[in-house]
Amino acid sequence: MNNILIAQSGGPTAAINAALAGILSGALGSEEAGEIFGGVNGIQGILEENIISLTERFGDDRDALRRLYFTPDMYLKSCRYKLKKPDEDDSDYARLTEIFKKYNIGMFFYIGGNDSMDTVARIKAYTEKQGLDIKVIGVPKTIDNDLVEIDHSPGFGSAVKYVATSVREIMMDTGLYPSENVTVVEIMGRDSGWLTAAAVLAPPENFPSEPIICLPEVPFDKDRFIDRVNEEVQKCGFAVVAVSEGLRDDSGNYIAEASAGVDRFGHPQLGGAATALASMLREKSEYKIRTVELGMAQRSAGHISSETDLKESFTLGENAFKYASEGKSGIMATLKRTGDEPYTVEYGFADVTEVANKVKDVPKDWMDEDNFTVTVEMVQYLKPLIQGETEIDYKEGLPDYLYDRHN
Amino acid sequence: MNNILIAQSGGPTAAINAALAGILSGALGSEEAGEIFGGVNGIQGILEENIISLTERFGDDRDALRRLYFTPDMYLKSCRYKLKKPDEDDSDYARLTEIFKKYNIGMFFYIGGNDSMDTVARIKAYTEKQGLDIKVIGVPKTIDNDLVEIDHSPGFGSAVKYVATSVREIMMDTGLYPSENVTVVEIMGRDSGWLTAAAVLAPPENFPSEPIICLPEVPFDKDRFIDRVNEEVQKCGFAVVAVSEGLRDDSGNYIAEASAGVDRFGHPQLGGAATALASMLREKSEYKIRTVELGMAQRSAGHISSETDLKESFTLGENAFKYASEGKSGIMATLKRTGDEPYTVEYGFADVTEVANKVKDVPKDWMDEDNFTVTVEMVQYLKPLIQGETEIDYKEGLPDYLYDRHN
Repeated sequence: MNNILIAQSGGPTAAINAALAGILSGALGSEEAGEIFGGVNGIQGILEENIISLTERFGDDRDALRRLYFTPDMYLKSCRYKLKKPDEDDSDYARLTEIFKKYNIGMFFYIGGNDSMDTVARIKAYTEKQGLDIKVIGVPKTIDNDLVEIDHSPGFGSAVKYVATSVREIMMDTGLYPSENVTVVEIMGRDSGWLTAAAVLAPPENFPSEPIICLPEVPFDKDRFIDRVNEEVQKCGFAVVAVSEGLRDDSGNYIAEASAGVDRFGHPQLGGAATALASMLREKSEYKIRTVELGMAQRSAGHISSETDLKESFTLGENAFKYASEGKSGIMATLKRTGDEPYTVEYGFADVTEVANKVKDVPKDWMDEDNFTVTVEMVQYLKPLIQGETEIDYKEGLPDYLYDRHN
Repeated sequence: MNNILIAQSGGPTAAINAALAGILSGALGSEEAGEIFGGVNGIQGILEENIISLTERFGDDRDALRRLYFTPDMYLKSCRYKLKKPDEDDSDYARLTEIFKKYNIGMFFYIGGNDSMDTVARIKAYTEKQGLDIKVIGVPKTIDNDLVEIDHSPGFGSAVKYVATSVREIMMDTGLYPSENVTVVEIMGRDSGWLTAAAVLAPPENFPSEPIICLPEVPFDKDRFIDRVNEEVQKCGFAVVAVSEGLRDDSGNYIAEASAGVDRFGHPQLGGAATALASMLREKSEYKIRTVELGMAQRSAGHISSETDLKESFTLGENAFKYASEGKSGIMATLKRTGDEPYTVEYGFADVTEVANKVKDVPKDWMDEDNFTVTVEMVQYLKPLIQGETEIDYKEGLPDYLYDRHN
């Protein structure tokens, strides 16, 4: 049992393939590793035996491995499949065990977020109970930055860099006109405001305006919001709002849902948080209001990924293989921050049951509710994560990402 | 009368400051040029005597000039001000003449689109009639690519590069899941489909799916659209739609407006074209539907600007100064394409009255209406415009754009 199986799960990031490249880089040619397989479409694909050989694909093609590193999205594709509790229904686990045995799997790496770490914990417990000798290891990623037991989630830094850059460009654009105008930018993160907070980094040097930041953790107060926008427009002639898609009122209802009405045929409309805030501002002001909804572009923007983020993600992948080789199992590769200036980290691992299904919230004292912004502690936390630009290949003017059809 | 006045107008692009840098690069230190002034907020700012010295700012700071080149948005800010016809009301012209005399202006450069070229034509005619010796020159820009007398508008190539890159990343993201899903991306260009057509460049090598492109020139047919989406989802399991914000039905009504209804309080909702198409698809299918509205990010994305675009824009600025020095007036600096492979251009100029208020449409035979796409001629046209990546400065992980407060 010395073959390896790797899969990816959940939402993509710009750094998740760097983690895969890290595992492959450790495993290819290692004495500990037999053949390396990839499960396509996560655990769901493995259950359907959608399995390819990564040794064949990358063993003799180090240039493909190099391109994999900077390719966003997920080389092995994804799923949103949750295993049942084994004491309720163990058929998925039995099937997995069958697959593991058939492919002679001794190490299983699952790259993902909270849910994926739950999957890792369950597979570890089940296979152990069955007496199978399989090292089951989690490798972290999520742009939501809500994983515990790690200073920050791989993929988050690149999303921060993209959001801060885009909001910088949008702020400069919004500030161009002599007439009063407001731009509302909607940012991902349904439950936590980590990524929305990235807007605080956006203003270029000398810029007269600060973004108005609406976090999902802070119950939305319409009147105070409109006052804050008016204040900024009076000061600078314009304002830029960075709003989390998950913005809620004080009863916990999503602002986007509350404002969504029906179309002329009576069909329900699905508006986002930016659309909702724009409607409020249009009612209460004469400003020209525009919205930007960056959407999935935030988690897939490989063209402006953070070098720090990708390097860390790669190292976490490498370490995951090292830990498995040392006989560890049921762990997630992690890192903790040991310094801000200069920024330093220490790599390690955590028990995956300590990570599964838990959520890291934005600390209350990093939010400045009264001023619709975040504090200097948040700025200090975010800054190191976006340092450095990843060198990527371009072909005919566009990023030359690695893409393989797996079927 | 040998001082120079420069201003910018209309919407920003990633290349408009490169044109300003080009004029400055030609003029600074030239014997033909006295002091160089900038009008802040276009013609509106000039009328209000909002004028700064660019000689003071850039004369001894070539590094600032270098950063100006890659900075998106507009260093001199913008306006949307239309001069009245002089035979109806010549007060603005009289005021301009006063300013020109006061600042001893011998050359006036206006960087902008169709409307700005109309302004150039009118100022030229008026000052000539007054017997003032002022060379009035237009320098082109617009991401809409609708200027005539030029092969393509500066700023367009960078917008194409950004849109094609973003749609590439979004397509790879959309294709990750085993469940059927569709992403609708809204692209700028209210009246013409040049920029929406950029989506055709998006699929990476080996990719199984093509974007479904909805141009504003092609009357929207809901049933045919839904059939096309179903066809793509059946083929690949997913689909990506690139829709122009200006999509219209066969009566010329905007699809976005037609679908916008009222919210629960009876207030009119303002949805975009992407939201409208998403609603249609939700009614008719079980697909998971997502929308992306890149908005202003498309015209300000300096972090992924086209080197070809910025170089051309710079050269057009340099040429504009050269033509003025040679005594030309009432012209716009232009370029025409002389070859596709290799791509070559020839620089020149056009009578600005031939450009003002005219619009370059997408040729009918470059659109493939039946297949919701564009033809190989369009691909051949677009490709050279996105070649090369502009080297920009980064500071603390973000693009180090030049920003000055002008007041």
